Formats: sequence, C-alpha cells, structure tokens
Amino acid sequence: MFTHIKELQYNAKPTSPDPVYAKKLQEILGGQFGEITVMMQYLFQGWNCRAEQKYKDMLLDIGTEEIAHVEMIATMIAQLLDGAPAKEQEEAAAKNPAVEAVLGGMNPQHIIVSGLGATPTDSVGYPWNSRYTIASGNLLADFRANLNAESQGRLQVVRLYESTTDPGVRDMLSFLIARDTMHQNQWMAAIEELEANQKAIVPSTFPQNLEKQEVSYSFMNFSEGEESSDGRWAKGKSMDGQASFEYVSKPEAMGQNPQLQPSPAYIHGTVPPDMIPPETDQANFQSPSNNT
Amino acid sequence: MFTHIKELQYNAKPTSPDPVYAKKLQEILGGQFGEITVMMQYLFQGWNCRAEQKYKDMLLDIGTEEIAHVEMIATMIAQLLDGAPAKEQEEAAAKNPAVEAVLGGMNPQHIIVSGLGATPTDSVGYPWNSRYTIASGNLLADFRANLNAESQGRLQVVRLYESTTDPGVRDMLSFLIARDTMHQNQWMAAIEELEANQKAIVPSTFPQNLEKQEVSYSFMNFSEGEESSDGRWAKGKSMDGQASFEYVSKPEAMGQNPQLQPSPAYIHGTVPPDMIPPETDQANFQSPSNNT
Amino acid sequence: MFTHIKELQYNAKPTSPDPVYAKKLQEILGGQFGEITVMMQYLFQGWNCRAEQKYKDMLLDIGTEEIAHVEMIATMIAQLLDGAPAKEQEEAAAKNPAVEAVLGGMNPQHIIVSGLGATPTDSVGYPWNSRYTIASGNLLADFRANLNAESQGRLQVVRLYESTTDPGVRDMLSFLIARDTMHQNQWMAAIEELEANQKAIVPSTFPQNLEKQEVSYSFMNFSEGEESSDGRWAKGKSMDGQASFEYVSKPEAMGQNPQLQPSPAYIHGTVPPDMIPPETDQANFQSPSNNT
Amino acid sequence: MFTHIKELQYNAKPTSPDPVYAKKLQEILGGQFGEITVMMQYLFQGWNCRAEQKYKDMLLDIGTEEIAHVEMIATMIAQLLDGAPAKEQEEAAAKNPAVEAVLGGMNPQHIIVSGLGATPTDSVGYPWNSRYTIASGNLLADFRANLNAESQGRLQVVRLYESTTDPGVRDMLSFLIARDTMHQNQWMAAIEELEANQKAIVPSTFPQNLEKQEVSYSFMNFSEGEESSDGRWAKGKSMDGQASFEYVSKPEAMGQNPQLQPSPAYIHGTVPPDMIPPETDQANFQSPSNNT
Amino acid sequence: MFTHIKELQYNAKPTSPDPVYAKKLQEILGGQFGEITVMMQYLFQGWNCRAEQKYKDMLLDIGTEEIAHVEMIATMIAQLLDGAPAKEQEEAAAKNPAVEAVLGGMNPQHIIVSGLGATPTDSVGYPWNSRYTIASGNLLADFRANLNAESQGRLQVVRLYESTTDPGVRDMLSFLIARDTMHQNQWMAAIEELEANQKAIVPSTFPQNLEKQEVSYSFMNFSEGEESSDGRWAKGKSMDGQASFEYVSKPEAMGQNPQLQPSPAYIHGTVPPDMIPPETDQANFQSPSNNT
Amino acid sequence: MFTHIKELQYNAKPTSPDPVYAKKLQEILGGQFGEITVMMQYLFQGWNCRAEQKYKDMLLDIGTEEIAHVEMIATMIAQLLDGAPAKEQEEAAAKNPAVEAVLGGMNPQHIIVSGLGATPTDSVGYPWNSRYTIASGNLLADFRANLNAESQGRLQVVRLYESTTDPGVRDMLSFLIARDTMHQNQWMAAIEELEANQKAIVPSTFPQNLEKQEVSYSFMNFSEGEESSDGRWAKGKSMDGQASFEYVSKPEAMGQNPQLQPSPAYIHGTVPPDMIPPETDQANFQSPSNNT
Repeated sequence: MFTHIKELQYNAKPTSPDPVYAKKLQEILGGQFGEITVMMQYLFQGWNCRAEQKYKDMLLDIGTEEIAHVEMIATMIAQLLDGAPAKEQEEAAAKNPAVEAVLGGMNPQHIIVSGLGATPTDSVGYPWNSRYTIASGNLLADFRANLNAESQGRLQVVRLYESTTDPGVRDMLSFLIARDTMHQNQWMAAIEELEANQKAIVPSTFPQNLEKQEVSYSFMNFSEGEESSDGRWAKGKSMDGQASFEYVSKPEAMGQNPQLQPSPAYIHGTVPPDMIPPETDQANFQSPSNNT
Repeated sequence: MFTHIKELQYNAKPTSPDPVYAKKLQEILGGQFGEITVMMQYLFQGWNCRAEQKYKDMLLDIGTEEIAHVEMIATMIAQLLDGAPAKEQEEAAAKNPAVEAVLGGMNPQHIIVSGLGATPTDSVGYPWNSRYTIASGNLLADFRANLNAESQGRLQVVRLYESTTDPGVRDMLSFLIARDTMHQNQWMAAIEELEANQKAIVPSTFPQNLEKQEVSYSFMNFSEGEESSDGRWAKGKSMDGQASFEYVSKPEAMGQNPQLQPSPAYIHGTVPPDMIPPETDQANFQSPSNNT
Repeated sequence: MFTHIKELQYNAKPTSPDPVYAKKLQEILGGQFGEITVMMQYLFQGWNCRAEQKYKDMLLDIGTEEIAHVEMIATMIAQLLDGAPAKEQEEAAAKNPAVEAVLGGMNPQHIIVSGLGATPTDSVGYPWNSRYTIASGNLLADFRANLNAESQGRLQVVRLYESTTDPGVRDMLSFLIARDTMHQNQWMAAIEELEANQKAIVPSTFPQNLEKQEVSYSFMNFSEGEESSDGRWAKGKSMDGQASFEYVSKPEAMGQNPQLQPSPAYIHGTVPPDMIPPETDQANFQSPSNNT
Repeated sequence: MFTHIKELQYNAKPTSPDPVYAKKLQEILGGQFGEITVMMQYLFQGWNCRAEQKYKDMLLDIGTEEIAHVEMIATMIAQLLDGAPAKEQEEAAAKNPAVEAVLGGMNPQHIIVSGLGATPTDSVGYPWNSRYTIASGNLLADFRANLNAESQGRLQVVRLYESTTDPGVRDMLSFLIARDTMHQNQWMAAIEELEANQKAIVPSTFPQNLEKQEVSYSFMNFSEGEESSDGRWAKGKSMDGQASFEYVSKPEAMGQNPQLQPSPAYIHGTVPPDMIPPETDQANFQSPSNNT
Repeated sequence: MFTHIKELQYNAKPTSPDPVYAKKLQEILGGQFGEITVMMQYLFQGWNCRAEQKYKDMLLDIGTEEIAHVEMIATMIAQLLDGAPAKEQEEAAAKNPAVEAVLGGMNPQHIIVSGLGATPTDSVGYPWNSRYTIASGNLLADFRANLNAESQGRLQVVRLYESTTDPGVRDMLSFLIARDTMHQNQWMAAIEELEANQKAIVPSTFPQNLEKQEVSYSFMNFSEGEESSDGRWAKGKSMDGQASFEYVSKPEAMGQNPQLQPSPAYIHGTVPPDMIPPETDQANFQSPSNNT
Repeated sequence: MFTHIKELQYNAKPTSPDPVYAKKLQEILGGQFGEITVMMQYLFQGWNCRAEQKYKDMLLDIGTEEIAHVEMIATMIAQLLDGAPAKEQEEAAAKNPAVEAVLGGMNPQHIIVSGLGATPTDSVGYPWNSRYTIASGNLLADFRANLNAESQGRLQVVRLYESTTDPGVRDMLSFLIARDTMHQNQWMAAIEELEANQKAIVPSTFPQNLEKQEVSYSFMNFSEGEESSDGRWAKGKSMDGQASFEYVSKPEAMGQNPQLQPSPAYIHGTVPPDMIPPETDQANFQSPSNNT
C-alpha cells in the first residue's frame, strides 16, 4: 500500500515558462527510458519478486522513489506550459516569426488535449506503453535491464540539461542526474553481488553441456575487413572465465538449405503449375470443403 | 551492402510438426527481446556509429549474424506449422478434445493470415515495433542495452528449450543458447574495455560538480522496513570509486508543495466558483475570442 | 512524494493456483479500464490540477489508492501462476487433454517472458498504453471520464467474479467491487457539485450564442424507422434546462457538395487526362524541380 | 446497410488555406476523442445492442451522423492544405523565416504520405486505434463513456475554435459545437432514463451483499492533509441512496504482507544462494529437462 | 452525409453459436485486411479525391458498401458468441475437456470487455489502427493498394470458409467472397483505365531522365545461386515498355565506405580515447554548458 | 546466412547538413512504405515461400538489396543531422528566428534519444511496426502487396526529391527512384507470369460455384448520383474474363433485420425494464453465482 505527501522530492520550478522545452522534457517523463518506465519496471519487478526479501524491498524502495520523479517532471512541464501563446499573441504571429516558431515547436496536444498539462507521452507525442518494461523473474537479467535504463536515462537528462539555460529547470535536472548516478551505482553493486553468487551468464542454471559449446566463445566476422578483431571480445579469456575468445575470420554456414513443403489445399497458397486444374473444368472442381 | 547464401547458419529442422509450439517460438523471433530486436538494434548502432572503426565493424558483424538467426527461426516455425490440423481433423475435433486443444492453442493468424508461415510478431501475436531498440550514440549505454537483450534473450530461449522435447528443435535452440553465451561475453568484454577508458557512469563526460552531489550516493528507503539496507548498494565504496554508499532510512522531501496557476480563459479549464459569470447573463458574455 | 508499506490494502491470496484464470485477470490490471488506467489517470489529473486544492488532494488520494490496487492484482496473478504445468506435466499432456487445455488457455508470455509474474498487459497480452487515460484540464469533463472508467471497471470485475469459484479470488474481487461502488458514488458526487457551480455542458465557459444554436437540441433520425423517437432524448426539456428536445425525422444536408482543387505538380497526384504530356516528349519534360 | 448523399451535413469550407492549422484540426478527426472514435463507438454499440430496439435505433442514428462529421472534417483539412508551400516558396524560406515556420509547423506526412489529404491520425500524427472505443454490452456504462467522449470532444473543438480566426473554419466548428451540446444532452437524458429503471451503480444486477460492504461508501485519505474531506464525496448521503459517505482519515492496510514462492527450476529465475550447485560440478549437473 | 436502413446487405445468421469461431472471424472484421480497413481506406480516398468526379463517386460507393460489410460481420460475431459457456458449464469443465477447450479457444475479452459483442480487433485481439490504410493522392498507387487489400481479404475469407461447416456462416461468407471477386475485378479495371491514360510506373509525372537510369531495369542477384534468373522479371521487355530487363549476376557496390564525424560535445556520445580528460582533473573540467 | 561489405550500394552523402530534412527523410526509412517495410516483407515472403525455388530466390535477392537501402538512408540521415544547432546557436535563437525555426522543425528525439543518429521511425517519429508487412503464403496476393509498396514508395521518394535542392541528397534519391522503377516493373512481370498460370482472382483455387455468383460482377451504386457508372468497372467484360460487369443503380438489402438475444445473466448487460427485481428485494436477490 502507498501513501502520498504533498511536497515534491525536490524542487521543480522553472525560472520562466518555455512551452517548446516542455515538449522536449516529455521524453524523460513518458519516453522509452523516461521515469514512467523505471517506475513501472521496478514496481513490477518488486511485486513479482520470488527471491530474497532484501531484493523485493529494495526494488519497491526505488520504484516508489520513481513515482516521485514522475510527479516532479509532470509538475515542471505544467509550469513550463504557462507560457503558451494566448490567442492575442497568435494573431500577432502573422507579423512575428518568433511567436510563430514557438507555436510550430509546441506539441499541439499540450493545448488541445491536456489544456496546459503534462501528458504520459514522449517528446514526439507517442504514448507510453508497457512493452518498454521487463520483469523476467531472473534478477540478474533484470538488473542489467535496470542498469541500461539508468544509463540511457542519465544520458537523455544530460542532453536536456545542455538544451536549456533556465536555472530552475537545470536545478531539477541536476537532482535527477545525481539520482541516476546513484542508480547506476546501485545496479552495478547489485549485479556484482548476484554475479558473485551465481555465474555471470544468464541464466546460470542451464547446464552448459547442453548448449552447442563449439560456438560459445567464437566471435564471427560476418562483414568484410577485420577491424573487429582488434577488441577485447576477440581474444583473451572469456568474461565468464570458462574459455578463451576465438576470432573466426570466415564463418561457415553449418545448416541446411531449407526447402518447405507445399502448403495443403485448404491454405490456398501458390499452386505449382502442374497442379492447377484446367480452367474449363474448374466450375466442376470439388473443393476439399465442398462435401458437407 | 549485403549478400545472402542459401544455407542457414545452423540447422533448423523440427523432428515433428507442432503448431502450438510454433506459436510460443514466435516470442524469440518477433518479441521484445527476440532476434528481430537484436538484429535491428545492432545494425542501427553500427550504421549510426561515430566512434572508432572497430566498434562499427563489430556491430555490423553481429548485426549481420542476427539476420541469419531471424532466418533460422522463421524457417523452423514454418516447418512446425506443417502439423496444423486440416479441415478433416477439425471435423473430428468435436469428438476429439486433443485436436480441439491444438486448435485452441494455435495462433489463428498462422492459418488465416500467413498461411502456415512465420510472422514478425511475438507469442501473443503482438507485432514487433522499433521502440524495442535503442541506438543512443553512446556506446557504453548501448552495450549495456545489448547485454540486457542477450540476457533476457538467452533466458527466454532456455525456457523454450525446457518446453519441448523435440530433438530437432532442441538442437537449433542449443546453438542459439551458445551464441547468446558468446554474445553476453562479448558485450561484457566491450563494456569492460570502454569503462577502462572512460568512467563507469554514463555519460562520463558530464562534469560531476554540476549534479546535485549530496544525493549522488544515497540509497533512499521509501518503503517501510529496512531489509534493503542489507545489500552491497547500501554500504561500502560506490562502484564508480568516487564515494561511499549511504543508507537514508527516512528520506525527507526537499521540494516545494506545488501550486499551479489557473489556466487562461482560452483553455476553458475548470473555473473557480467566484469566476463564473451569472447564468442569466451568459448569453451576453463576451468570449475572449468573440471580438473578431 | 510517496512511501510504501509492505501490507497490501486487502488480501490477495487465491485458494488454488489457476494459470488460465491468471490470464483473464490481467484484463483488470493492464486493460483499457484496468487499475493501471485509473492509477495513471487520477495521478496525472492531480498533478496537472489548476483548480481548487480540494480537487487536487482528492485526485491524489484516489490515485494513490489505485497504486495499491495494481499491487494487489499483480500479487494475485503471480500466485495464480504457481499452478503452471511443469515440464513433467507437459509430457503427460499428450495423453491428458485437460493439461493440454490448460496450456492452450494460458498466456505463453507468463512462462517465457515474465517467469510466472504478472505483466502490465491485458487479457489478450496487449500492452497497456497511456492513450487509455485523459487529463484535460477541465474537471467536469475528466470526472465524467472517471465515472465511465469506474463503471466499465466494476462491470469487468463482476464478470471475472462470475468466472471463478475460488473463494480467495472472490474475496479480493468483492473488495474491488465495493471500492468501485464507492468510486462511482464519488465521481457522481463530484460531478453534481461541479454541475451546480457551472453549467452541465462542458465547457460551460463557451458562449452559447457562438454555437449554431438551431441544431443544439435536435435529435436527428439518420436511420430508417422511428423507434428512436421514443426516448427521453427526443422530447421534453433538455437536460441543461436551456431548451426543449426536437425530433427531426428526415434531417436535410445543410452543406456544400465538396469539390477539391487538383493538387499542385510537386505532389504528383493523379493527373487529369488532358494534362498528361505526350509520351514521346516525356524524356524532355521539364520537372518543376529540374531547374537547379 | 448504408447510403451516401453528396452534400455534406454542414458547410466545411475554410476562408483561406492554413496547413499548420490543418495539423491541429486532425485532433478532432483521428484523435482519442475525435469523430472517428464516436462514429466507431456508437456503431459498434448499436450493432452489438441486445437491449430494447429504441436504443439500437438511436445508437445507429447518431453513429450514422458521426460518419458525416468525419466527412466534414476530412474535407476541411484537405482544403486547408491547399496552402502548403510549393517548392518555389521553400527556396524562399532560407531568406524568409515565416515560410520556414509554416514548414516546421506542418505535419510532413500531409505532403509526403497523403499528398495534401486528411489522414486518420491525430494532431501529432499518431494513428487512430480502436482501443479508443468501448461497447460493453451494458448501456448505462457505455452511455457514460459516450457522455465523456462528447464532453472531451466539445472541449477540444472549443479550444480549436479559439485557435483560429478563419470565419469558414469557425462556421463549421460552431456547428460541431452545437451538435456536441445536443449529444451531451442526449446522453444525459438516456442515462437519466436508465438510472430511473435500474440502479445508478453499474452493473445494477450484482447483489450488493456479495461485495465487501464495509468499504463501499468510504472515502480514503491516502495523502497527507485533509483538504479532500471538504467535498460532497466525503459526507452526506451516497449518490445511490443506499448509505452515507464516510471519511477515513488514516486508512489501514487490511491485507497480507505478500511472500511469493520461489519459482520452479524450469523457469530459471533467481536462485537463492544456498541452492546454487558448486561451480566445478556444474558440467555434470542434470537439468530437469535433460532426461529425454 | 449518410443514412442507414435496418436490413443487412445480406444475411448474417449462424446456424449454431460457435464462440471459438467468433474469435477467428474477427480477423476479417478488425484485422490488417479486414472490412474496417477497406471501409476507412475507400472513404478517405474518396473524401481526399482531387481527380475526376467519377473516381470520387466510385470510391464513396464502395466505401459505403464496406460499412455494410462491417455491420454484417459484427452482427454475425455477436450471434456466434451466444454459445459462450455459462458459469454452470464452466464448473462442468473441470470434468469435461471439450468445454475447457472452448474456453481456452475463446477470446476472453468477448466476455469480460464486450459482453458477447464483436470488437474492432483482429483474431488475436490486436486493435485495428489506421496505419493499415493509405490514401496517397495518387489514384494509381492507391488502386494497387486496393487490389492488394481485396486479394488478401478474399484469401482470408476463403480460409475462414474452409474452417467452418456451419451453413449460415458459409452463406454469409459466400456473399463476401463474391463481392471480393467483384472488387478485385473492379480495381483491375480501374487500374487498366488509369494505366492507359498515364504510364504504368507511379508516379508517371516524374521525368525519367532525372532518375539513375542505368539501374532502372536491372535485376540484381544478391543471393548465391541464380534460380532467380529464370523469371519474366529478368529478361525480355520491361513491363513499362521503355527498356529490357537485365540480369546482374554479381552486383557491385557503387557507394562510399561511410565514415561519420564524431558527435559534438553536447551530445555526450562515445569519446575517442585520446579526447578523454585525465580523471583527476575532471572535477574542474569546464562543461560547454557550464558558463551561465 | 548473410554477409556484409563496407561499401554502400550507392553514394549517400549530402552536400550540406539539414536536420529538418533529416526528419522528413525518416518517412522512407521507417514509415509505412519505407525501406524497412519492403526489407522485412520480402525477407519473410522468401523465408516462408513454399512455391517454386525461383520465387524464393528472387524474394531473397530483393529482400537482401533492401537491407542495403535501409543502410544508405540511415547513413544519409546521420550526416544530415550534423547540422543540428549546437548550444551556442540555440542561445542565439532567441534573437534569430531562423535558428529557432530549425529547432522547431527537427525531431527532438534526433538529439535526445539517438544523439544525431537515424531512428527506425517515420517522419512524425512513429515507430516502425511489423503490421506494415504481409506474407500470406499466396504469391499472387503478395506480389500485389509488393507492387503497391513500390508504388507508394516511389511516390514518396519523388515528393522528397522535390522538397530538397541538395545535390548529394538528390543523387541518392535518383538511385532509389530508379530502383523503384525496376521493382515496380519486376512485380508487374511476376504478377503477369502468375496470372498466366493461374486465374487473376486470388485465390484462384476456390471453386467459383461456391460463391454467391449473382453479385460477383455487380457494381453497386451506394451513393446518390451516377457518375460512377462512367468507368470501365461498370460495363464491359470483367477483367477475369468470366462475365460482364453490371451496374446496379439502386442496390437492395438482401439480409435480415438483425435482432440479438438478450445476454445471459452472468454478462450483466442492460436488463429489459420488466426483468429488473424490485429495489427493496435486491439485497436478497440470489446471484446466479451466489451458490458456492
């Protein structure tokens, strides 16, 4: 169960309205790696957690924090939209390209649909959807998803920080960037802990003798040129400590030349020429389904 | 530019048809972490790559390999569908619950839409979409996305391996599992290399003095109970080596109690009671827009 | 800001596992009118609220409660999935149509993707998306959206109640049904309050003399037969008290017969026959764009 | 069955072209609450109607009218697009920021994809989808959905009316606003009629003694502060007339502290530390699936 | 403007209910090539039509007919659902695998969401969306889209005809198949007429001397083996009559080896090793954005 | 299996950067009829092909070529984005409307999400999804889909050609336009070949005596006025050579006036007035589900 307090986790007050920036800021609210994504991802990982209690608790801690981040950014966007040009300014726009440019740069739904409110969508207005999230039941896999989300997220917040000079907006973003620093550290720590207990390859419980082990450590060079041989992934001990990387310069096909059977009649696929009934007879052709 | 050879990278031949399993296998073809996802993700990361040539080359190597994996699984699905019950069997189904169960378990689009062919969709028939992928321009962030994709992917393939006893299907899956072993190793190696050159926190080029550093290493306990304090993320040196983790048992709100301004008239939001014009006068009310 | 406590708002414990029912129950978790919808809708209405403080507070109260409902249903689904047939049972299925039927009726992603966890999707596996929600900035409009959501929601929960005999599941659903009774009452009360202050027609601030008033109270009979004249909507005083309903038996078209201009050359639309250049000359035809 | 006449229901002729406004106007054509939504919603409610004939007839009347509204707006958009800057103007744009601003504000698909035609999408180009609609089989629930749709719809049309000064566009919008006045009245009338016959809580046929009645009329205060107690929803007789509202200042959790079982081996979830086989032995580890 | 008459265009009455078949039949209602697609596609092509009046009229004729097809199939599905197992039967299902199989094969939303009504979705429950349609402003292009839609549509209806033995359902489908015969004929006729007036290559108004004509008639063999040389597309006169097909056995790359510039600092992309500031100095590093 | 070579199929180098044009160019990369669509469509048709080997080989040839087209356009977009205004320019924008207009016209995700890289989305930022493609198992149907895709595709490329004067961009587009000329020719040739072997109506294997032949060649005039009679589709021999077109001026309804049964109690649909239990008794009403 959850409770709410009125104060925001951190200040979310722009120094000046900026409706064009409001559109951009939507990316970290309702985008692929926005705060709604991490909120939902951590909460579902927590609710579905079948591992030790400390993981469930930790996931719900951070998931609950992320609801507060969604709240901060939504509040910020609503205030940035206070500068949306009113009708009078719109009329002036015919003469003033700067006003027109603002209108062109805004998300029209911020006026028509949400009436100057934040929306659960990204910077091009695409709605958030839950396929952005994962809760697989395997925490090592999921913590890697989480580390990625915080990495992409911090990168996007930094790019948005660079795109404004508003001190109030930058203040809020500096808080989110710091929390993303912590959250990247947090998932790295949790991953290290799990990798120490289990093996690094997810899932660690599948017996490796059942996999096709001759290709388990081979880097295959499928494109012309061999620049790719000059990387850690192509030589030296493998990261799981089980073998050494091998560089395969010209990988060979190991499989069949596939030939599919013709489809059965009830599929009405393409018929080989020699199986087509003569046209004049077709009216009398007995469909396989015509015998009822 | 690309070229195709007819042989598959590895065998993709079921021992027996199994149209219900074909539906499940779609998950690793067109699902969130299926082969289409990694194919598109690696190719776009490669095409957009602005870093050293060896990374571009490596990304296109593995992206090109993934096209071959899509091909293998599509071919496998088409053959598994050869066992779709023909009309005659359907009629028998009224008396034979086993046949009916097959029909219930199949994806109906495998008959109606694709005519016994694989589709670029997942195991519930949801179409693949490109928001499953990321190419951010920051390779450390993206390699973490890739490591996650290979972790989730190998986990799903292993679960599908456990769900069949068909030796031909298991043979193909054992190859894919082995390649996912390599690919997890590969991304771990590439991540290690990049982290050695740059710092571990993405992006490493944002000056840390600009972030709100007092919360950069704090684990915040937003849920009742303190089980979450018992993890590597709550104590000891931070993973980036810059500080020590701190456990905040009762985090305080640091922000304002947000109050938004009333919306301007042209938005027609909810009007405070004292701003509503008396009803009898309303017909004469001058709209802000009525003066043209 | 939000905090979490470990106990659920109400019990969420099935008497027995039932993975087929788990799939159905997803509808009220991640469906169009599931708990994620109302949670997100109320929270965004609250965060964007520019009206009196009591509305913002009330919206955040109920939005916060809905997070707890999401939590309860997710927890229930994870437990219902405990009965997913293990591999041993799957092998038995060839001989046991009842086991096969369970497999056919399950959502395959509950095994392959979420590893026996709830997913933020509906009963056909379609992901939740934010276009299910609305926060328009006009509370009367939005409270009508909320009343609809609680009406559809309670209807769906009741149908799910009828579809199970598990006492534990029914216990949880009886709680959700009761809360939906309250929430329908709540939105009706809030609507009554707003309609008393403002007029019933949303938005109430648009001057009615600007609308085409001759059709503001006419029911138009666009289909053959006049059964539709026998309703409250076709006679008597209008609900807003401004006029009387009128039944128009044969509505006339009042508009033009539309004729669009041909498209300009750079669009390359369909060209009227007399505008096509003679074929032999076409190689010398000057494109409008060929002059650079 | 349907027939078409050439004249529009009402005039749809702009005084001047305005391709930027065309983009905005798409919202009420193909948006969440645009005319396609109500057209499809009413038609499906009518076709699925199992209640008295007058409801089916009424639904098909209004659904048929909405097709005409889709036609009017599509026609209007095509004419607004006649002003899309031709190539010559585009070249001028380098020197003329006003032309460039028009180009920036247009939907590029209005040129590239539809060749100056309307598209079944909203004002950010997002395609219409049928999850915007509902036909539940319970008319009281659905009429509430309809009242909401007409409320959101009229609000959006009014905002678009305020965003233009073109007399021709405003003339068409004044007609749509008037029809939305009627349609809000209509659904209020139909709701009143149904509530008089049945109870106000949807569905009215579920026996209330089966719901958890101790929470059926309680407003729960899940956020700090008690501003929410000052509303009609927190005191007085409930709207269904069955009880009185109660304000619960500090709602208690009534449910369990949930603990999920570890997942079975074939799920390959996170393994508790004491269940991991020693690494050296793992090659010999018998997978549960390895016995075939 | 449109009007409705009560009778269906053709009978839509199943001989017996069949809720599993109802799920499959959804494909031709709300699927990619279902009746909603052609209805919306033809109506929008008609409304946007800037060509001769006869095309606009013809498009609106057939678009209006398709609304009637949507009506027929929706009506059929509602009746097929009359056989959904009631609760009593569900209880029996534990003992009766045939009943369970029906439940497993149904779309659960047909009970929970639509209450035994048709839904605007396909056979896996995926909602219809408008990206299934096209109206490009070029009728030759669009008529090819239409011919494809009627070809895919008739194929799907035939497959559904083969999947049932219900005489009532087959009667309705035999009508739809016949109309699709007409509609394929119709679009072939309209295409022939347009190709006679204009050239066969869309768009015919782009001067061919502006395209890279040395590759305008070359079939390029990008896969190993030359079976593809044995087709009409690889030899003989081209279909537009302008040249002869050429078979290129080993196509050469004609383009550059692409090298992208490093991204600017504000993007925070991957930094080449020699551009990374020494770690100890980084706290003093001047961000490009740090000068405000 | 596939291999990659470093050179592009054709040059993809803009003369100058143009980030606004980069946004538009996305349409032919990740749009409904962009290169990803044809790449995926041809590859899946090839992999699923059950017809003669020459078709499979041909489909994989052209599918493989389309991967190279995706590569070219992605590379072009990345270079066009090199002109995205840096922060310094952004500050200048307040004074320079031309810079602001560029910012308004860009896709914000090209900075925030992809860091100046191409994305697999269209010109409004909507992600590519696989429902844009079809592989039906019937090649005649699918080749018609392919001809449509190449027709829409070439039309869009031509419109983009007209929208730029950059010689480098036009050079690349002139190559794509030429290839689309070939590909339209190619599919016309393949269609002619298949129609010669089989009949023109898809599927040709369904016995025509099973369809409702009295409406197989009738053009039905569902809209007022008879302009539509003046087309090839309304008179003369049908295109399949089996009959003559007939023009039906006033088509009659041939079907029933549909009446659905009331829904069973467990659906909780709208109850006819005479079936509602008296209100005072309702607390004692026995639900059909209340007997457990």
